Amino acid sequence: MPEPNALSARVALLSIGDELLLGEITDTNVPYMAQRLLPLGLAVAGCETVGDETGAIVAAFQRALARADIVMATGGLGPTDDDLTMEALAKAVGLELEYRPEVMDQMAERLKRPLSSFTSSNRKQAFLPKGAHVLRNDWGTAPGVHLIVGEKHVFLMPGVPREMKGLLNERILPLLARLFPLPQAIRIKTFHSFGIPESVVGERLKELMQPGRNPDVGTRVGGGVVSVRLVATAAAAEQAAALLAGPAELVRAALREGLFGEDDENTLALAALRALLARKKTAALAESCTAGLVAARLAEIPGASAAFLEGAIVYSNAAKVRACGVQPETLAVHGAVSAETAQELAAGIRARAGADIGLAVTGIAGPDGGTPAKPVGLVFFGVATAQGVRTWERNYPGYDRQTIRDRAAAQALDLLRRAALEE
Amino acid sequence: MPEPNALSARVALLSIGDELLLGEITDTNVPYMAQRLLPLGLAVAGCETVGDETGAIVAAFQRALARADIVMATGGLGPTDDDLTMEALAKAVGLELEYRPEVMDQMAERLKRPLSSFTSSNRKQAFLPKGAHVLRNDWGTAPGVHLIVGEKHVFLMPGVPREMKGLLNERILPLLARLFPLPQAIRIKTFHSFGIPESVVGERLKELMQPGRNPDVGTRVGGGVVSVRLVATAAAAEQAAALLAGPAELVRAALREGLFGEDDENTLALAALRALLARKKTAALAESCTAGLVAARLAEIPGASAAFLEGAIVYSNAAKVRACGVQPETLAVHGAVSAETAQELAAGIRARAGADIGLAVTGIAGPDGGTPAKPVGLVFFGVATAQGVRTWERNYPGYDRQTIRDRAAAQALDLLRRAALEE
Repeated sequence: MPEPNALSARVALLSIGDELLLGEITDTNVPYMAQRLLPLGLAVAGCETVGDETGAIVAAFQRALARADIVMATGGLGPTDDDLTMEALAKAVGLELEYRPEVMDQMAERLKRPLSSFTSSNRKQAFLPKGAHVLRNDWGTAPGVHLIVGEKHVFLMPGVPREMKGLLNERILPLLARLFPLPQAIRIKTFHSFGIPESVVGERLKELMQPGRNPDVGTRVGGGVVSVRLVATAAAAEQAAALLAGPAELVRAALREGLFGEDDENTLALAALRALLARKKTAALAESCTAGLVAARLAEIPGASAAFLEGAIVYSNAAKVRACGVQPETLAVHGAVSAETAQELAAGIRARAGADIGLAVTGIAGPDGGTPAKPVGLVFFGVATAQGVRTWERNYPGYDRQTIRDRAAAQALDLLRRAALEE
Repeated sequence: MPEPNALSARVALLSIGDELLLGEITDTNVPYMAQRLLPLGLAVAGCETVGDETGAIVAAFQRALARADIVMATGGLGPTDDDLTMEALAKAVGLELEYRPEVMDQMAERLKRPLSSFTSSNRKQAFLPKGAHVLRNDWGTAPGVHLIVGEKHVFLMPGVPREMKGLLNERILPLLARLFPLPQAIRIKTFHSFGIPESVVGERLKELMQPGRNPDVGTRVGGGVVSVRLVATAAAAEQAAALLAGPAELVRAALREGLFGEDDENTLALAALRALLARKKTAALAESCTAGLVAARLAEIPGASAAFLEGAIVYSNAAKVRACGVQPETLAVHGAVSAETAQELAAGIRARAGADIGLAVTGIAGPDGGTPAKPVGLVFFGVATAQGVRTWERNYPGYDRQTIRDRAAAQALDLLRRAALEE
């Protein structure tokens, strides 16, 4: 996290809506806004979620204004009776609401309807705290709002992520960049690795991670991926970039072959697909326990079909034999979860699909089906290339079905990336 | 939402961690906890997110204790220097920290390591606010904590969702049910439907949805699924159950063939798998644009392999021909995205897998590949059974790649469920 002296202002976020407190929806606006604010040197000091109740929203606005320079609230701007954000903000700062005809004009223009066709509920959306600036919303009907309160700035946005993103990116961030010019430039660089435990990464980067260093270096882990983030601050952008250069090389060296991507290249699927496309190779998959997870992650990426030819989800033994040419004797002698079966699955799908790389996953995801010799969490991987077939064995003990499948899919995508990059 | 007079206590949630304020992770703990608390009559009054800073956490604990009967905090219980929750809670309520050897004993037992092997960082996790109760964590090493502060109750859980869920469900909810017996009985019943727009459901249930009725009836929509929730409150459980019976029948009638599940049977995949198992039928899939999504959702459910035999992910035309027996002329004349190809894919995978039902999905997920005649978002589905093959055409215009694939997978699972239930 950047040192406080590199920050130009503190932000408080406020999410408004009963649906959030009932657990009916997950608040994805907060992480999105936080990520977009950070490069401007605007750090989120805290965030609060309140329901559709005027008193609670008023109090939350007052707390937010007390602790931050910028308050950004989402939700409660719609036309219904439980949309109370405008009214609550006006109360919180002691202002009246006033009717703003331009809001209705924009709504009429956007919906291509005459002004006369709007109901009083619609008109409610045009009552803003006195003196507020209207931020034109080209992604929905509720207006964005910018209210200056003394030295502080309050922004209101709809809770619908698409509308929030439009207003934030097109209206609010450019304004904030002008209002709060960075006292120092910030440059951020992120590295993503797989296969090296976080503790080992921490050990290798011990020197760089000493507190008070510039760039600030931090690690985080999720789904088996360990990411390292460098945040450099300096008087000018070039200096910040220069500060990053040396440490970035040290991080690359520390992560070595585990490094699969930098900055936005933050998923194993994207890294695997890019490796395939860069080397003009094709892949085919045979999945048993992951049952389509690896394929679905590859196919999530636009253009995946250029490198990913096909997949076989071979849950049953019959499917393993028929779709991938596994020998019935192999299944009988070694079992469906074995290095031998993984090997034949990989070779079989590669040959049948005519792909450069065949990748196979077979394991025991549980909760049932484990034995002392082959416990739940045991997974075998096979990779077939023109050079031959190799297998790997991994164990994910003590994890639930979802996590075992998730980790196995991550491992499979990393093996695919590595195979694609081989000569 | 249950009426306030039916609620036994108010809950404040507190999420602790820099990673939340940096937007590095999305807080899924809050909606999970809110959903689990509601049936106990415990409503979330608000939630707050703070970073790893003692002063901020202390202030947040004090605000939460001021406004709620129960405070539940997640995060900041780990062994590192930026794990400050224990210390901050102790400060917030004016208690000392004390060493609790049973925490280390549990850690040693769980990790199968001798006590002497633990570092001082590990031991830090065993310092709890004086008088706190240890909640045994069988899902990780950080202990759960229950601290009674006057009339109020504070619970601390790790931020890792798996550990939070274990502690919440196995330790905390049973305790809360005893501590806060419901002044009124609440019975909740939920219905899940697919294929009927929310506005139509709302129209059919207009009478039941009038404000102030008991049961309270609300709808919500997500991923194409429209759910209807009934919340009945009464002096005794039997009365609440009786209040539900009539309206529940009306909802079932209103949702008709769109109804796929009740209460916890809340995913289309679960409904499809249960329908297959109930009718002792097997299924095989041929997926093009969804590319494993349908298979992965089925396989997420323990025991899926009993009914789901195999899947073919047939991105390339060659794979459609080889793995599912699609005629090259069909592809040449009608194209890969056509009812004809969907039909042959479904029939082909059914025959090859020897399954009762063959299900096929082929479409244009975009962002590229659309034409005026076959735009992005056009998807064909095929279902093959012993009775023959049928096809469906759906269009998801204006959606992004992810949403198109998601909606197509939902549609496919609903077709599979309906096919399984046919005679």
